[in-house]
Amino acid sequence: MSLENKIKVIAFDADDTLWHNEPIFYSAKDKFSRLLSNYHTEEWIAQRLDEAEIRNIQHFGYGIKGFTLSMIETAIELTEGRVTGNEIQEILSFAREMLAAPIELLDGVRETIQELSKSYNLIVITKGDLFDQETKLARSGIGDFFSNFEIVSKKDKRTYENITHKYGIVPTEFVMVGNSLRSDILPVLEIGAVAVHVPYKTEWFHEAVTEQELIGKVFVRLEQINLLTSWLNERN
Amino acid sequence: MSLENKIKVIAFDADDTLWHNEPIFYSAKDKFSRLLSNYHTEEWIAQRLDEAEIRNIQHFGYGIKGFTLSMIETAIELTEGRVTGNEIQEILSFAREMLAAPIELLDGVRETIQELSKSYNLIVITKGDLFDQETKLARSGIGDFFSNFEIVSKKDKRTYENITHKYGIVPTEFVMVGNSLRSDILPVLEIGAVAVHVPYKTEWFHEAVTEQELIGKVFVRLEQINLLTSWLNERN
Repeated sequence: MSLENKIKVIAFDADDTLWHNEPIFYSAKDKFSRLLSNYHTEEWIAQRLDEAEIRNIQHFGYGIKGFTLSMIETAIELTEGRVTGNEIQEILSFAREMLAAPIELLDGVRETIQELSKSYNLIVITKGDLFDQETKLARSGIGDFFSNFEIVSKKDKRTYENITHKYGIVPTEFVMVGNSLRSDILPVLEIGAVAVHVPYKTEWFHEAVTEQELIGKVFVRLEQINLLTSWLNERN
Repeated sequence: MSLENKIKVIAFDADDTLWHNEPIFYSAKDKFSRLLSNYHTEEWIAQRLDEAEIRNIQHFGYGIKGFTLSMIETAIELTEGRVTGNEIQEILSFAREMLAAPIELLDGVRETIQELSKSYNLIVITKGDLFDQETKLARSGIGDFFSNFEIVSKKDKRTYENITHKYGIVPTEFVMVGNSLRSDILPVLEIGAVAVHVPYKTEWFHEAVTEQELIGKVFVRLEQINLLTSWLNERN
C-alpha cells in the first residue's frame, strides 16, 4: 500500500502489446520488395514504401487498407507506371493475407489479462482502422476480459484526457500499458497518469522518440507483460 | 405534451443525413467506368464494381479506402490483368479527390442542429472509416453542437442497445434520425426506441430493404431535416 492513488482502470495498447502486429507488416514489405526487385534494389524499394507510408498517414490514417494503397502507389511511382496489372493483383493478395493473418498473443498476455480482470476495469486503447481492430479483438479470444474498446485515430494528450473523463476517474487512477513511447507513454505522462512501457522486439520507425524527449520522464518499464501483476500488487 | 417519454438524446446518422456523401461515390464510379470504357461497356463495369463492393465489405468495411481497393481489384479483373500502371494511378487520384471533397451540409442541417442543441443532447452515430469520419466531422463546421461521435462498424440492434446503455437512458428517451431504413430505422425500432426517417434523394443499393420488412413498423418520416424541430416540439 502506497501513498499514491489506487489504480482503477488499466488500459492496454493492442498491436505489439497484446498481440504481434509489426511482423505482419514486415513480412508484407519483404514480399513487396521482392515482387518489384526487377525494377530496383529491394532496399531502395523498402525505403520508398516507408516514405509513402509517412506521407499518406495524414490522408489514409493507420491500418492495412491505407498501407495497401501506399504499396500500390509506390509500385506505380518506382516503375514509372510500368507495373503490371498482375503485379498489382499480387499486392492485393498481400493485403488479403494481412487481413486474414491469425492473431498471435504475446507471451503471458492471456494469463495476465485474465488475472487482472478479476480486480481491475480493463480497457483497450488502440489506433488503427476501426474495422481491422474490431475484427482482431473479436478473434483474439481475450475480448471478454475488457469492458471497453477505444479505437482512436490518434493518441495524444487530448485523447487520454477524454478517456479518463469518460470513465469518471482522475488521471492518477489510470494506467496505460503499451509498447510505443510516442503513443502510449509520453502523452499519458502529460496528463499526470501512470504509464508502463513494455517494449516490443521491434519498433516502428514512425513511433520512435529521441533521447531528448525522454529526459525527466518518469514511467515504469517492464520487460514482459506478465510482470504487471506483481508490480500492481506492490503499488496498490 | 404527450404520454410518451420525453426524448433526451437525439442521434443523427452522418453520410446523406447531415451532409451529401453518395454523390461523391457516384461521381467516382462514373469516372472509373469511363476510364476503363476501352475494355468493356460502362454499364458492365459499374455492375462489376458494385459486386466487388458487396463482396469486399466483409474484408474491408465501409469507407473510401475499401472502395478504392475494390475499384483497383475490379480494374484488374475486368481487364484480365491488362490494366496499366497509369490507369491504376488514375484510380488512386479518384480516391484522393474523394478524400479531399468538401463537406456539403444538406439543406436546413446547420439551423436545425444549432436549434436542437439548445434543448437536447445531440450525438452522431455513423458507420464508415474512423479516420474518414473524424476528418469529415471536423471539417463540417457543426461538430461542436454534438456531445459525442459514435463511429461504428455496423448498425444493428446490439449497436443501439450498447449506445442507449452507455448514455444511461431507456430506449423510449432515444431518437435516431437517418436516411437508411436498413441501418437507422429498423434496428432502432427493434430496441423500442424512436426512429425518424429523412430520405435522401438516392439510396445505396446495399442499404435497401423490402416492403415485407417494413410491414407493421411504426416510425416517423420527414421530408426534410428542418421539420424535426416542430415534430419534437409537438411530441415532447
